[in-house]
Amino acid sequence: MAHKHGHGRERIQFANTEDKQEFSKYPTKAGRRSLSRSISQSSTDSYSSAASYTDSSDDETSPRDKAQVNTNGSSDFCVKNIKQAEFGRREIEIAEQDMSALISLRKRAQGEKPLSGAKIVGCTHITAQTAVLIETLVALGAQCRWTACNIYSTQNEVAAALAEIGVSVFAWKGESEDDFWWCIDRCVNTEGWQANMILDDGGDLTHWVYKKYPSVFKKVRGIVEESVTGVHRLYQLSKAGKLCVPAMNVNDSVTKQKFDNLYCCRESILDGLKRTTDIMFGGKQVVVCGYGEVGKGCCTALKALGAIVCITEIDPICALQACMDGFRVVKLSEVIRQMDVVITCTGNKNVVTREQLDRMKNGCIVCNMGHSNTEIDVASLRSPELTWERVRSQVDHIIWPDGKRVVLLAEGRLLNLSCSTVPTFVLSITATTQALALIELFNAPEGRYKQDVYLLPKKMDEYVASLHLPNFDAHLTELSDEQAKYMGLNKNGPFKPNYYRY
Amino acid sequence: MAHKHGHGRERIQFANTEDKQEFSKYPTKAGRRSLSRSISQSSTDSYSSAASYTDSSDDETSPRDKAQVNTNGSSDFCVKNIKQAEFGRREIEIAEQDMSALISLRKRAQGEKPLSGAKIVGCTHITAQTAVLIETLVALGAQCRWTACNIYSTQNEVAAALAEIGVSVFAWKGESEDDFWWCIDRCVNTEGWQANMILDDGGDLTHWVYKKYPSVFKKVRGIVEESVTGVHRLYQLSKAGKLCVPAMNVNDSVTKQKFDNLYCCRESILDGLKRTTDIMFGGKQVVVCGYGEVGKGCCTALKALGAIVCITEIDPICALQACMDGFRVVKLSEVIRQMDVVITCTGNKNVVTREQLDRMKNGCIVCNMGHSNTEIDVASLRSPELTWERVRSQVDHIIWPDGKRVVLLAEGRLLNLSCSTVPTFVLSITATTQALALIELFNAPEGRYKQDVYLLPKKMDEYVASLHLPNFDAHLTELSDEQAKYMGLNKNGPFKPNYYRY
Amino acid sequence: MAHKHGHGRERIQFANTEDKQEFSKYPTKAGRRSLSRSISQSSTDSYSSAASYTDSSDDETSPRDKAQVNTNGSSDFCVKNIKQAEFGRREIEIAEQDMSALISLRKRAQGEKPLSGAKIVGCTHITAQTAVLIETLVALGAQCRWTACNIYSTQNEVAAALAEIGVSVFAWKGESEDDFWWCIDRCVNTEGWQANMILDDGGDLTHWVYKKYPSVFKKVRGIVEESVTGVHRLYQLSKAGKLCVPAMNVNDSVTKQKFDNLYCCRESILDGLKRTTDIMFGGKQVVVCGYGEVGKGCCTALKALGAIVCITEIDPICALQACMDGFRVVKLSEVIRQMDVVITCTGNKNVVTREQLDRMKNGCIVCNMGHSNTEIDVASLRSPELTWERVRSQVDHIIWPDGKRVVLLAEGRLLNLSCSTVPTFVLSITATTQALALIELFNAPEGRYKQDVYLLPKKMDEYVASLHLPNFDAHLTELSDEQAKYMGLNKNGPFKPNYYRY
Amino acid sequence: MAHKHGHGRERIQFANTEDKQEFSKYPTKAGRRSLSRSISQSSTDSYSSAASYTDSSDDETSPRDKAQVNTNGSSDFCVKNIKQAEFGRREIEIAEQDMSALISLRKRAQGEKPLSGAKIVGCTHITAQTAVLIETLVALGAQCRWTACNIYSTQNEVAAALAEIGVSVFAWKGESEDDFWWCIDRCVNTEGWQANMILDDGGDLTHWVYKKYPSVFKKVRGIVEESVTGVHRLYQLSKAGKLCVPAMNVNDSVTKQKFDNLYCCRESILDGLKRTTDIMFGGKQVVVCGYGEVGKGCCTALKALGAIVCITEIDPICALQACMDGFRVVKLSEVIRQMDVVITCTGNKNVVTREQLDRMKNGCIVCNMGHSNTEIDVASLRSPELTWERVRSQVDHIIWPDGKRVVLLAEGRLLNLSCSTVPTFVLSITATTQALALIELFNAPEGRYKQDVYLLPKKMDEYVASLHLPNFDAHLTELSDEQAKYMGLNKNGPFKPNYYRY
Repeated sequence: MAHKHGHGRERIQFANTEDKQEFSKYPTKAGRRSLSRSISQSSTDSYSSAASYTDSSDDETSPRDKAQVNTNGSSDFCVKNIKQAEFGRREIEIAEQDMSALISLRKRAQGEKPLSGAKIVGCTHITAQTAVLIETLVALGAQCRWTACNIYSTQNEVAAALAEIGVSVFAWKGESEDDFWWCIDRCVNTEGWQANMILDDGGDLTHWVYKKYPSVFKKVRGIVEESVTGVHRLYQLSKAGKLCVPAMNVNDSVTKQKFDNLYCCRESILDGLKRTTDIMFGGKQVVVCGYGEVGKGCCTALKALGAIVCITEIDPICALQACMDGFRVVKLSEVIRQMDVVITCTGNKNVVTREQLDRMKNGCIVCNMGHSNTEIDVASLRSPELTWERVRSQVDHIIWPDGKRVVLLAEGRLLNLSCSTVPTFVLSITATTQALALIELFNAPEGRYKQDVYLLPKKMDEYVASLHLPNFDAHLTELSDEQAKYMGLNKNGPFKPNYYRY
Repeated sequence: MAHKHGHGRERIQFANTEDKQEFSKYPTKAGRRSLSRSISQSSTDSYSSAASYTDSSDDETSPRDKAQVNTNGSSDFCVKNIKQAEFGRREIEIAEQDMSALISLRKRAQGEKPLSGAKIVGCTHITAQTAVLIETLVALGAQCRWTACNIYSTQNEVAAALAEIGVSVFAWKGESEDDFWWCIDRCVNTEGWQANMILDDGGDLTHWVYKKYPSVFKKVRGIVEESVTGVHRLYQLSKAGKLCVPAMNVNDSVTKQKFDNLYCCRESILDGLKRTTDIMFGGKQVVVCGYGEVGKGCCTALKALGAIVCITEIDPICALQACMDGFRVVKLSEVIRQMDVVITCTGNKNVVTREQLDRMKNGCIVCNMGHSNTEIDVASLRSPELTWERVRSQVDHIIWPDGKRVVLLAEGRLLNLSCSTVPTFVLSITATTQALALIELFNAPEGRYKQDVYLLPKKMDEYVASLHLPNFDAHLTELSDEQAKYMGLNKNGPFKPNYYRY
Repeated sequence: MAHKHGHGRERIQFANTEDKQEFSKYPTKAGRRSLSRSISQSSTDSYSSAASYTDSSDDETSPRDKAQVNTNGSSDFCVKNIKQAEFGRREIEIAEQDMSALISLRKRAQGEKPLSGAKIVGCTHITAQTAVLIETLVALGAQCRWTACNIYSTQNEVAAALAEIGVSVFAWKGESEDDFWWCIDRCVNTEGWQANMILDDGGDLTHWVYKKYPSVFKKVRGIVEESVTGVHRLYQLSKAGKLCVPAMNVNDSVTKQKFDNLYCCRESILDGLKRTTDIMFGGKQVVVCGYGEVGKGCCTALKALGAIVCITEIDPICALQACMDGFRVVKLSEVIRQMDVVITCTGNKNVVTREQLDRMKNGCIVCNMGHSNTEIDVASLRSPELTWERVRSQVDHIIWPDGKRVVLLAEGRLLNLSCSTVPTFVLSITATTQALALIELFNAPEGRYKQDVYLLPKKMDEYVASLHLPNFDAHLTELSDEQAKYMGLNKNGPFKPNYYRY
Repeated sequence: MAHKHGHGRERIQFANTEDKQEFSKYPTKAGRRSLSRSISQSSTDSYSSAASYTDSSDDETSPRDKAQVNTNGSSDFCVKNIKQAEFGRREIEIAEQDMSALISLRKRAQGEKPLSGAKIVGCTHITAQTAVLIETLVALGAQCRWTACNIYSTQNEVAAALAEIGVSVFAWKGESEDDFWWCIDRCVNTEGWQANMILDDGGDLTHWVYKKYPSVFKKVRGIVEESVTGVHRLYQLSKAGKLCVPAMNVNDSVTKQKFDNLYCCRESILDGLKRTTDIMFGGKQVVVCGYGEVGKGCCTALKALGAIVCITEIDPICALQACMDGFRVVKLSEVIRQMDVVITCTGNKNVVTREQLDRMKNGCIVCNMGHSNTEIDVASLRSPELTWERVRSQVDHIIWPDGKRVVLLAEGRLLNLSCSTVPTFVLSITATTQALALIELFNAPEGRYKQDVYLLPKKMDEYVASLHLPNFDAHLTELSDEQAKYMGLNKNGPFKPNYYRY
């Protein structure tokens, strides 16, 4: 990707250019879950009239060149079309139905307004689910300015709905890179308002502030960061002694991790394969490369639907788990000829090589549930002797000279990002975690957090979980005084040591 | 539906008008499986470029008014656009990959051409999968004329591909009822060619021949019928002493039944719910009404993905099975307030009543996997105090005065017909069964079959299954002479008595 | 086995001597389930103080030589020791807890006493569960005389408890064959009492009456037979035109079949393997020969506990089911070297051959869940080059010259008969079915049943199931009048056609 | 328990007397797994001819009063009967079949003899499995003296077999407490031999050395401790600055934890319930208190066999996991009336109270899979209005005045300790972990380990796992150089960070 830099704006230097390029084109691993719904809605999901309504807009004028005001007369925002607000409101209301944890948080905390005085600048995907988060923050007393962390993922009508109720939102679907930084700048750099909290997803907002407005950090009480990439950058800053405010790594909270990986992949592997290939799972021979949380989720679901699953592993402990869970542990080369489906979940590169692709049988489906697009050596397939035939969106047949076809999904990118949706419930876990992290950092007594990166306290992680239990009509048992004493626990938690494996 | 009868054609009297009406609007129960793929491809599945290509055609001319010839100069067909043939050929080739049983049948039977001399007139859905069947019949020696059993389900490009290779096909997507009967007539009533075999799906072709060309039956060696409705009509004819040729009921063969119900529903319930609602299955409270094969399939899949499933039953034996399989057996009214999802699989009517719909909680999803659209009392929801809001294709929110929303899928019609696809593999089972039934009837020695309705011989049912085993690399064990004698079995089957329950 | 015939009694000729021999040594297939509990209790289950109490008895006097009276002064019985009655009563009370269907039947039918006037002579295993059946028959108005169908399976203290309350029971554990026929004769041949109903398990009682007291059949209203062998004999009699009363085949009722095979084996395979070998199931490679109901039960349980299961089949339909259920279908010879456990469930002979036993790996466990002891070629292992070492009761190590050990369970006899127990609940299903069959035959209007063998009417089968639903707190839904009409069903059942596969 | 102290020996003061009392009567939580096999063999498992052979011994002479020599003339041991050696040898050989990891370790390490020079004094259960461990240590170059950590668990014939090959073993089944300490002393205090390594299970050996022979620690290179209790004591010593050698906590290694809890309980819950109650699992309503690893194992197995399982939890994260895994989360009081089985897995006390026991339905089974015997308030059942009736070994009926019976298993002690066996494979994991810890500590370069308590290095944990993979014919994949670099991993591991949750 060529970085274009008009408008006389300074070029931001990223530590890792490669990372950034991928980020701009496709969401990074970190952002993939919260992104996938919006991406799939807008690009692949014809059910959503919302998306199509927006898409069919013929308006080619750049939002930056339009003058718009909301009903209250404010023009401190920049969205595609403020008139879509009502439509976006309905989308938000639908999302609220599956995000009762945030609604419940609103109610519990509303009296005390724990974010009263908070001025939050945020940079996330802008979707109905994020809107529920933002409106929760507002209900708890915060003022918010918001921008998008991805140039494609904004739901325009949702952005309009937010602008309509007075949130200063700067985002639309299909921003140029220049637009991207312009929007961030407009969020941060506004007269008479200075952020004291940052909510970031990917680290771009944080970087911009560091580069352009370092003085902002004097007032900032903390940064909440969700993505792997963003967290990685924060740890690097911290190591280099350059982190000047406390930061909360919400990516690694237990609840979020389990939902992003085990539970979500358990469902999305089926969904992704079905929507792209209409495959019948019963009796299919499947090899899953990697038996971490993602692999475990995939294996559980496929086995449950009658597939015959074997796994590959490099780690003997995970391999032993696979054995005990009833999966044969094999080397990929030993079984590649017999497989109907090959799924990578390793986080590694070149897990499926050209040599193995050559040995697959006719009709074999190959896809990736791991991270980024390195696991399958797709580059090796772009060679003259092979023919690519696109048979559906996200589905390519790679045809060998002898007529053998291999079915490659999403060109080796993340299947669940490209070809399935993420349930609102999973996004609710993430959003609730973010809200609690903001509350914690904003209200923490002086000295509780230093200029370092922190994990969400276990007690807060437990609180996120507890806010989601009513969705399942689940009734928690309370410890009696006697029991708490016997166990050496506080009755309100935390209930487990930090190293507990769940 | 008002039957319109222009063009001076005689009105066909159906024994059961109600049945027919339903048929014309929606496919009957019998036809639903083979239909669903094409329906969903064309109406709901944006991935399929094939479908969209066809759909985007602006050509409004009726095919009946067009003059078309194929490459060989023949014009004995009527399709939307013969030029789509190449495109349809690719669709057929893709379907062939999952229908290796038919390909294998072609190879095994090609030397002897068991259908040499057969003149088959067929009336089925016209899809890539049916094309593989038709071309198999041709490869085995048959001459074929074909028409569509449903006015919406024809894949135009596939019809073109068939016409191109010389099959006289009369069908297009979006026929009027008049077109429908015109096409059937063109198939049957042609100079110098008289059918001696009938393959029917729904019984319309058979009825037409009975009414208009009864003399055709003098040469017909047999009828093969796939649908519940068609089979029902044949039994009625037989009872009334009016059936004048042997007929084969392929609907009730074991292999087909298991795949159409248990195995297919196990997958399509997940697919249908996911594509319409993006629901997360884990932890959801689901009630499945009816624990027959369809219900068993739904329950297995949902439980496997972490839903908490209970069932309702009227039959104590099925109820006891549910208990032993780990499902609570309840009355719907007892649990209706707590449920997240309600699924009907009974084949009955008014299983979910307005009173129960009134008591559902906000966000409850209601859908039907049973037969026709009677199970949920949808009519009761069309009342002034309730607001209907279409949020996606096939998804309506019914809104109560207090704001409660119930999510109704496919307006209570079959979820798997409307909102998911049927794997080619399932259709392969059906098509292979049809092919074998045709071969059996055509080659049966005089006297083996009387003027009655027959089930496919168990040995043929077993043969259908055996033709599909190579897909799974399954290796069958053969009985030794000694073992066959001990068991009192022929080494080549049949292996089970007719009443065996599988 | 040499038939010894003292006491001047006529020798009974069995149609099938081989069958009879097996019967005397091991229970027939039919009888196995109801027997297994008692066998295992007495021979292998050290937990049961009941059994050990009885076993430790030093009394070597034959019951036939003892004079015993019960509390009421009656001596019309012959049991091991009438003083054990109280102990037996407790065993019966414990069994009653899991047989609430019979207790419920007692209550429902008690007012009308549907067996009033019935004089039932019975020949079954005599266990606590049978006692609950007998006492139910008495409560419903019947007079009963009873004997044992197996020379080893009688629980002496239960026989005593029955004798104490006035049932004329003639049975003890460890009868000689002569004792066996003497007991049957004492049941049938008594002054001033003539049976009008027969309840048989194995057909011996029926045969004795045919041979010795054919005139009894003049008054008999019907025979209820439970075993495969007994039913087979009845069908032979019927074919030969010699059956002179109606007979009810309860062996093939749906409810009983499912519990005897699928549900019971699902649990007993684990129990049998665990009790004998302490094997850890997780990760074990298992081959199950045969995918009928027994095989399906075994596979389900083993897979669920983490074993990696493949199957062998001769029937392509069952093989296809196995594929769809997620099991590889293989030939035994292909996989025999890798297997940790080999289980036979075919009903055939020599399914596991010596050649295959030679190729098994060290430590491989071999056992049989099918019928009789023919499936594994155990005879071939009794050869001089192999050493047998008994390591536990029912567990032999067969040692090859190179030191390889194969672990043979129960010498190839039925694992679940020899090494696990049958839950009382399964026996409750059987006993309830027998009771209803007796009531039906006794009360049927003249002409409903001819001199033929009948299956239990579906409605009664459904009634058996319904009587067991309260155990699960299961609530059945009732059809509305409108629904019953729509379905063409009677509101009280039967709900399915006879050929329904469940 | 009154500590009796004859023989003029000093009384050992335990920090926690209560703990000690329980220890002597029942094994502590820590020791339970390795103990359970032997306990169950000797007390409840009639299959084991080994146990019965030993048990039937009439020899009442104390081993301490007997003069015995082995074949080589050595008398440096004290066992029940040296003549049982041959019998014990067979038991050891059988155990070896399932402990191939240790055999493999022998082979891999035999050339270099990594324990050459090691003088190990050990205090563990003495069973066939431990013997395989001890003989492995000897094969690797160590000299061993051994004693029992539990007065009941010694397999006498195994002790004899060890003595016969020259291991100085001091242990027999049924030691008095005085014998217990005498044996420990004989192990430690011997002329011309001083231990330089300690392997302990429970901490008694370590304490004895601390109290009586503190100078031994000058030469000791390390302590390996397996039990929770022993590890707790070591941490206390460390905190108090009194630990004077490095210690390895092998209890908390990942591999051992997963097998001791999740995988082992998954199987033993079924086994324990079946052996005691013959319960049919299908359709049973079960509540499992606690959804940690033990609870997860129980729930998985019970659900798989058709039980309807709900759980109670105090921790919202575990509760949310239960929801996603398909279990209703309830309070015990809400469901107690409906339950067929109640299982505690919390590690807490009074989880099932008398008030709840009062509300259970007739026939409800109550048992404990957690730790110690505190979870069910059994003491509250020992009151005059309730009648206890022992119906089998380990099974009591508690009878309420109204006749209601509650079935209490193992008097509330650990079900899997008391009523099921532990597969040798699980013990192999533990023993291999111990062996590797000894090798690591003995060979560690000066300074690697201080006077502190260490966890087994992750790499060694992975090695334990890898040694067990051949049992499953599992083939591990190796990282390429390129992949290792990409992941930032060493090709030989460790493959995961320490906090990885598996």
